[in-house]
Amino acid sequence: MSLESLRYSRGSLQVLNQLLLPQQSEYEQVKGVQDGAAAIRTMKVRGAPAIAIVGVLSLAVELTNSPIQEVADLMTFVTVSLDHLVSARPTAVNMKKAADELTTFLSLESEKSEASAQGLTQSLIQWAESLLQKDVQDNRLIGDLGAQHILKTVNSTEGVCVLTHCNTGSLATAGYGTALGVVRSLHALGHLSHVFCTETRPYNQGSRLTAYELVYEKIPATLITDSMAAVTMRERRVAAVVVGADRVVANGDTANKVGTYQLAIIAKYHKIPFYVAAPSTSCDLSLPTGNSIVIEERPSQELTDINGVRIAAPGINVWNPAFDVTPHELITGIITERGVFKPEELKEGLTQKA
Amino acid sequence: MSLESLRYSRGSLQVLNQLLLPQQSEYEQVKGVQDGAAAIRTMKVRGAPAIAIVGVLSLAVELTNSPIQEVADLMTFVTVSLDHLVSARPTAVNMKKAADELTTFLSLESEKSEASAQGLTQSLIQWAESLLQKDVQDNRLIGDLGAQHILKTVNSTEGVCVLTHCNTGSLATAGYGTALGVVRSLHALGHLSHVFCTETRPYNQGSRLTAYELVYEKIPATLITDSMAAVTMRERRVAAVVVGADRVVANGDTANKVGTYQLAIIAKYHKIPFYVAAPSTSCDLSLPTGNSIVIEERPSQELTDINGVRIAAPGINVWNPAFDVTPHELITGIITERGVFKPEELKEGLTQKA
Repeated sequence: MSLESLRYSRGSLQVLNQLLLPQQSEYEQVKGVQDGAAAIRTMKVRGAPAIAIVGVLSLAVELTNSPIQEVADLMTFVTVSLDHLVSARPTAVNMKKAADELTTFLSLESEKSEASAQGLTQSLIQWAESLLQKDVQDNRLIGDLGAQHILKTVNSTEGVCVLTHCNTGSLATAGYGTALGVVRSLHALGHLSHVFCTETRPYNQGSRLTAYELVYEKIPATLITDSMAAVTMRERRVAAVVVGADRVVANGDTANKVGTYQLAIIAKYHKIPFYVAAPSTSCDLSLPTGNSIVIEERPSQELTDINGVRIAAPGINVWNPAFDVTPHELITGIITERGVFKPEELKEGLTQKA
Repeated sequence: MSLESLRYSRGSLQVLNQLLLPQQSEYEQVKGVQDGAAAIRTMKVRGAPAIAIVGVLSLAVELTNSPIQEVADLMTFVTVSLDHLVSARPTAVNMKKAADELTTFLSLESEKSEASAQGLTQSLIQWAESLLQKDVQDNRLIGDLGAQHILKTVNSTEGVCVLTHCNTGSLATAGYGTALGVVRSLHALGHLSHVFCTETRPYNQGSRLTAYELVYEKIPATLITDSMAAVTMRERRVAAVVVGADRVVANGDTANKVGTYQLAIIAKYHKIPFYVAAPSTSCDLSLPTGNSIVIEERPSQELTDINGVRIAAPGINVWNPAFDVTPHELITGIITERGVFKPEELKEGLTQKA
């Protein structure tokens, strides 16, 4: 069985506490919006798609178990809850987008003459559950489309060696993964020779989570530090770099885990194609370029301490941006569930087919 | 007072155990060659210049306290000892070079008709002590020449922002440092606006040692992860990158701490000059290109564990090269105590002035 970042049945949500991995695999109950927002903020759950799903499911669970009787009260509670969930981690667009879509959907539903609080709650729950289902379906499509595209482009007979960053697998999504979904599909097709995963400092999503998934699924993999990406590309015949995205904007500029930008520069230097794998829900066509993406800065302790032990010299200043923006000109293709697009084709591709 | 990586007086050598920094500042007695080689291999002392100095001083201390009476015995002991010291860490050339020069020097001395074991031992001790003195002098020259060169090139009125990697300071040398010596000189001249130091995984020389030195000397500094180098260059107006070297070969190709290669690629992308600061003793003109440099691979535990605690997923493969080779075409200049040379000028520059 594949790893699960969350376990859901109606009225019950559990998330795998990723802070405890790889030492412990422990699921925690999320009883409602407060728990959901806390799990997102403290990074018990992370990854743009997983954040959105846990967010709306936490709302669904709370309303299943503590129903609200009046339509006006329900709508206010939903609005306040979604604001709270969006603010837990601002850079990933999926939660914001899910909140906007859910708000619009409920507004339309509530305008119907027969609208009741009970009926609206049922609609909200079904909407949240469909988000969960759709994420896994979309990821399988991303994986398969990406793998086929890479195999066509790279034209390798002996299997493809891929380098990836951060964690974009089952643990970052509702299942299968985005960039790691592409790796999974290449492996399933028998065409993956090897995958290198970067440690991904300061939060070690690569060494803790991606490595955990790769060992779990017996995919041939090697862990490197972020600083070894260039020497790995040069000396280990890396054929493609595939990363995820927290937000892709209209011109293809992409915000993703810090370090992505330099991986793209290094890939270009080695003439290695660089792919972003992300569901269309991570694409924010309302922003024309990446310049206006707000980058979350995280506490310095993430960098100076590990497991509560200080590793850095006392007194040193720290800069800890969680993400960086990779300009579209460094990106070979954006792999979505609707197809693989060049950055300049993304906007048209997504709006045409929507 | 400046930080000291080692404390020496005739017959006594202590090294600062850098494994314990930044938590504890503890000097350990090095009683002879076995202690010296162990300190080098376990990285209690590291940095190419410091390795060579500790190596030959450990031999000098042992011979001071346990003199050998016969010339033949002395020469054999010296040869075996130097082989042992060189093999402790093979990539840095300084120890090998010091061993070769000391062997040649002693051979010539021993051929003199009045040569006695006592006299040869005295010569060896003086030779080792002069290596210590020369390193500090050379580093000050490197710092000053580098700072002047950068100020002339960058032409900034508001101070220069530098990015550096690993530890190349007082702790990597007998004092002052190479790349960090350039930073020190810029600061002393009042022309350093800021220095960014990379964490330098997996061994954290940046966060543990460089950060420690920078806080100690009150130099305006910020720690970043290795993955943040590109976003720092783009958004924090970095004017120059300065790194050290474990070995510079005839065409300017440079072996240095892993991650240096990708810093050079990223600097080039941002049109930021990239400098290597190293004493001429780190230059190995006998090798024509970097292709034949043997790169030391270190234990995987350095990457998967911190302070004895496992951080990476169990079962994951690891690749842990300690160094990488930066091709000369990515290097703007090589800062030595004899001047700042373009890679293609290095060989002529060093042989002419030798």
